[in-house]
Amino acid sequence: MKYQLSAEDLWEDVLSVRAQSPLVHNITNFVAMNFNANMLLALGASPVMAHAIEEVEEMASISGALVLNIGTLEEDWIRAMILAKKRARLKGIPVILDPVGAGATIYRNHCVAELLSSDPPNIIRANASEIMSVAGLSVITKGVDSSASSDHAIEAAITLARKIDGVVCISGQIDHVIDARGWHATLSNGSQLMTKVTGVGCSATAMIGAFSAVQPDWFRATVAAMAYLGVAGEIAERKTKIAGGGSGSYQINLLDAVDMLDREIFIKTVSLELTQY
Amino acid sequence: MKYQLSAEDLWEDVLSVRAQSPLVHNITNFVAMNFNANMLLALGASPVMAHAIEEVEEMASISGALVLNIGTLEEDWIRAMILAKKRARLKGIPVILDPVGAGATIYRNHCVAELLSSDPPNIIRANASEIMSVAGLSVITKGVDSSASSDHAIEAAITLARKIDGVVCISGQIDHVIDARGWHATLSNGSQLMTKVTGVGCSATAMIGAFSAVQPDWFRATVAAMAYLGVAGEIAERKTKIAGGGSGSYQINLLDAVDMLDREIFIKTVSLELTQY
Amino acid sequence: MKYQLSAEDLWEDVLSVRAQSPLVHNITNFVAMNFNANMLLALGASPVMAHAIEEVEEMASISGALVLNIGTLEEDWIRAMILAKKRARLKGIPVILDPVGAGATIYRNHCVAELLSSDPPNIIRANASEIMSVAGLSVITKGVDSSASSDHAIEAAITLARKIDGVVCISGQIDHVIDARGWHATLSNGSQLMTKVTGVGCSATAMIGAFSAVQPDWFRATVAAMAYLGVAGEIAERKTKIAGGGSGSYQINLLDAVDMLDREIFIKTVSLELTQY
Repeated sequence: MKYQLSAEDLWEDVLSVRAQSPLVHNITNFVAMNFNANMLLALGASPVMAHAIEEVEEMASISGALVLNIGTLEEDWIRAMILAKKRARLKGIPVILDPVGAGATIYRNHCVAELLSSDPPNIIRANASEIMSVAGLSVITKGVDSSASSDHAIEAAITLARKIDGVVCISGQIDHVIDARGWHATLSNGSQLMTKVTGVGCSATAMIGAFSAVQPDWFRATVAAMAYLGVAGEIAERKTKIAGGGSGSYQINLLDAVDMLDREIFIKTVSLELTQY
Repeated sequence: MKYQLSAEDLWEDVLSVRAQSPLVHNITNFVAMNFNANMLLALGASPVMAHAIEEVEEMASISGALVLNIGTLEEDWIRAMILAKKRARLKGIPVILDPVGAGATIYRNHCVAELLSSDPPNIIRANASEIMSVAGLSVITKGVDSSASSDHAIEAAITLARKIDGVVCISGQIDHVIDARGWHATLSNGSQLMTKVTGVGCSATAMIGAFSAVQPDWFRATVAAMAYLGVAGEIAERKTKIAGGGSGSYQINLLDAVDMLDREIFIKTVSLELTQY
Repeated sequence: MKYQLSAEDLWEDVLSVRAQSPLVHNITNFVAMNFNANMLLALGASPVMAHAIEEVEEMASISGALVLNIGTLEEDWIRAMILAKKRARLKGIPVILDPVGAGATIYRNHCVAELLSSDPPNIIRANASEIMSVAGLSVITKGVDSSASSDHAIEAAITLARKIDGVVCISGQIDHVIDARGWHATLSNGSQLMTKVTGVGCSATAMIGAFSAVQPDWFRATVAAMAYLGVAGEIAERKTKIAGGGSGSYQINLLDAVDMLDREIFIKTVSLELTQY
């Protein structure tokens, strides 16, 4: 089998998001909620944040994707995530999980296990520490930041992708996207400044939601989302440094870049390698 | 009866907000909370966000206006809104409702109905789809974004204004402000970029809170708020486009414009038409 | 006894924060959560926001400081704060309290009293009205903004510092840092524009968390945090005014300044006076 994925293919998915403006239902954390909504709007998607147990199933059922993020989890929110997830899986729309801080506390691990136990998510995006923790490998986690390198997490990601029969993305200096079929995409875009703005990782997960709502090959959708964000991150870094700005300017420049990225720059900047494991 | 409203009148209300810095009590959604607080501060008002059932009545009773926004509703918050609303109505301070996503789920409709059932809000601001839904007209709503045009919602707004014996504002490319007395203001300011930043609509509602706290004619207060935001939106668009910025820059430029808008630009930019229905 | 504190000493603490990137556990309000996280990241610290009763003790126990902020308090959050505080005190890490809006409602006063009743926080930072209210002096509070001057609150701060056997910071145009040993630092840095951005005060408290995680003399840590933020606030004001910006630009410039402040500018700008009361 030969699987191919060019920058042109990924750009097609960008155009699909912009044209279809998919509704992305987010049950996410308090810290990143505003930024994620703005990132999804900048991308051309239509974000909705709703977490009430009374309405999450209905909201999921009118959406194109469901994004679950446990950054500031609490009991009622986990219950809502489970209800929404079940409905989304029934309806066949992609469920994307961001297991923020997995490994940091017993409760977080317990919640992640519950979210994985039945109707698992179709796509998981996290940093290396979190992926290793979710895959059941012990790792020292410092709060919500990663202390492991992406490379060490690749084996864990393969295990996890097979377990959920879906897609796992390890984000970091290099992003890895791995699926259960044996494909492994390596993306080398991005910027160190992305770690200086809260919620950029969460936004990556939300953007995977938007892409997977319009591109039925969820491996490709995940690669497209990470490539898009990575390239936008580079553009924003360049603009920030030229103007002598810091992490505040970077946040704004990143939103601008996500809003305005054009085909030419995207195609020539994307650094993607596709292998089989 | 002749009712007149000039740009000069509206500017007087701006000066009143800046001079009195009214305390505006917001029970609002998690996504827009930070941005709304910053928009109110930029305007010269004094925002307070408080939702605990134990304190909302007391907080409402020391405030100049109460703003209710159901963007990320949940049961306890609705209970708090009902308590705060009752107290505000008793005290005679304006209650402004933003029925975010009305029509999207059964639960949202149920909550809106409950908020309207007794001691209804004095002012409602929403997009066309939401207004039609709140007025009891069936409409296809896509998440929290509007799928109806403002013009179609005018009849619904008139019905609703009479029902609450208050003011209804339909925001969109053209804003319509309608009251129970038969007045209809049409405002043509604003920018398409306002839809690319989350919480701009919610901020409009919060700003109506600030204006209605200082201007006892709540129709006029609503017109003033929408005019101010619309003009600021245009200034911000111009600045954003000149600098080649996107939705991130626009968010910042909008805050700057709300902070710094001066009399001369306001007076010459406001596009207001007043009719009787 | 002679206690000395130079700008050079404070800069050493800045370098410690940047080098150690302490994990700061925040149980804070919905409005400031995103901005506080970004301010801590800009400073070089590692923020984590977690409030679930099931995990706050564990999260506090892996952190370098615990920051409690009652801005948008509710019952479960207060319970979580009490659990986290007890664990933090046991472990010996600093607990910093921001009693937002103390004095505004009976419930807020009740919660503050509960947080002070046993295992009190080690450091309290608030505006003058709030400090007077927390110290048990009656004061007219307008929502969450201060209506008292810093000078009037100094006696209250001394009483409070002795009561908690810790550090009390009154922030305002002039910042006062007072400890139970009899030291009183007066800082004259800052900018009026800081009051036009929501969450700047909350960020000051969060930054005290970061400094006290690396500097065991918590009086000095508090002075360092307030000095750093005050100087960054001045730099940001200058940049904002040169560019003709308003409160939106100021928010971004403040983040940039916190991210990029260098030794030379810090040393020459800090305005610190140390006295004994």
